[in-house]
Amino acid sequence: MKFTTYLRDGAARLAVVDGDDLVDLNDVQPQIPGELRAALRSGVDLEAAARAALAGPAKRLRLSTVQRAPLVPEPGKTICLGLNYFDHAKEGGREKPDYPWFFFRGASSLIAHGDAGVVPSVSSKFDYEAELAVVIGRRVPRHTRQADALQYVIGYSCFNDMSVRDYQKRTPQWTIGKNFDATGAFGPVLVTADELPPGAAGLKIQGCLNGEPMQEANTSDMIFSVAETIALLADVLTLEPGDVIVMGTPAGVGQARTPPVWMKAGDRFEVTIEGIGTLSNPIENESV
Amino acid sequence: MKFTTYLRDGAARLAVVDGDDLVDLNDVQPQIPGELRAALRSGVDLEAAARAALAGPAKRLRLSTVQRAPLVPEPGKTICLGLNYFDHAKEGGREKPDYPWFFFRGASSLIAHGDAGVVPSVSSKFDYEAELAVVIGRRVPRHTRQADALQYVIGYSCFNDMSVRDYQKRTPQWTIGKNFDATGAFGPVLVTADELPPGAAGLKIQGCLNGEPMQEANTSDMIFSVAETIALLADVLTLEPGDVIVMGTPAGVGQARTPPVWMKAGDRFEVTIEGIGTLSNPIENESV
Repeated sequence: MKFTTYLRDGAARLAVVDGDDLVDLNDVQPQIPGELRAALRSGVDLEAAARAALAGPAKRLRLSTVQRAPLVPEPGKTICLGLNYFDHAKEGGREKPDYPWFFFRGASSLIAHGDAGVVPSVSSKFDYEAELAVVIGRRVPRHTRQADALQYVIGYSCFNDMSVRDYQKRTPQWTIGKNFDATGAFGPVLVTADELPPGAAGLKIQGCLNGEPMQEANTSDMIFSVAETIALLADVLTLEPGDVIVMGTPAGVGQARTPPVWMKAGDRFEVTIEGIGTLSNPIENESV
Repeated sequence: MKFTTYLRDGAARLAVVDGDDLVDLNDVQPQIPGELRAALRSGVDLEAAARAALAGPAKRLRLSTVQRAPLVPEPGKTICLGLNYFDHAKEGGREKPDYPWFFFRGASSLIAHGDAGVVPSVSSKFDYEAELAVVIGRRVPRHTRQADALQYVIGYSCFNDMSVRDYQKRTPQWTIGKNFDATGAFGPVLVTADELPPGAAGLKIQGCLNGEPMQEANTSDMIFSVAETIALLADVLTLEPGDVIVMGTPAGVGQARTPPVWMKAGDRFEVTIEGIGTLSNPIENESV
């Protein structure tokens, strides 16, 4: 089953996807909160609600006619992994990590499928990173073991972890270079976990700049799997419904190329993950 | 003027402080959202509302009888600075930074005045960090200059940025060691900016472990001032109402002592900032 988040009257709305159409869940069942994180926190069975909505005479909208919002517009936490593909660690001159390089993104950096990624006025070193995103569906008990971790995942999506490389390297803390406004593209759909292999392993992942493949890998190449990552995080903190984990990027980023490739206004970057879909974003300059 | 956040029926509630009492603002003026971030986002003039509430016959509660919540229970962003006092950078063997070492905290790490800071089961290297917290009152336009930055600050508070040092150093990214559950103490009150020197500069800041001063400094010792920090952030991202900036800690942390001092169950740590107040938290072990 696929869900998406779209904008209506300026508010993010949760919908179930039916082919080329969507059905707004809150329209059909007003007791369901209108936004994905709130719906997950409410504990409602989204898949049952979606099945019921699709079976009825609900109003359908064309996906191609709506404006999307970030899949989870305001996650409690967006936890990102650095260097989670060994080929990418190597291209950056790094060793294979023995623990994930975690950093956080704020919601103010997130954009939707179709929104413009923005080259900031203060830097031209604007890079792409195709990644798998994991959405937590239920609160994960502390110290959950790897073998039990995947039951808390409601589904998966695509993410473009756009990075301002000079800011990322101004200090050893990468956070600021990962938190420019309009640099975290997230969507277009949530594919529920039951439709994908466990942990979304074994899926082709590709990042294309203006149609040209720049990153090509398989999610099984990840050093830390989804289940292991959740277990490691559960030793530290409480993962809550609507929290997001962004699983790191494979080799082929722009900064590691000779000469480096930086995204610029007029470009388009697409993240495609097998079985999930394609997240597509044009690139624009910041208007100042 | 002083505000605080307390718990009533499990929900965080915003109140104005009047001596030893508090007045719940939402009780007096139901159009004011019941929680600080939501109230700030609504654009209501909190200080005018508080003056009106205090002038009326509103019901008062004793501060000493209520359970507090984190001052902003769920900030959009909690942005922390590392190494913002040169003496602290030096005690850690670091140079004076020429740009702040920014990292983020998630709301799941926050606790209130009086709540227990929790020594995790996976580490005993549990350290304190007394810090000044800045609460953003209005959206900060991108590229706001340092000279214009302070008008967006509604006020200041105390923060104990408790750190799990071995996790902080597992990789070069400090984030995970700063995001254990129940390690970010935030409160007890918001003191509005008009009651303090510009940028809360020139204030004594002290961290005491079991009554013994471990950190003693002045907020004017900060390398990056509040105004400069806001201006640097505004080059990158949008600061929104209810966002929090945690300004870094002075020298004297436990890990830099010989032998190192780690907090353990039964301890109490207090952060006192001149003109703001004292944030006090007992320390407990994680219950597993």
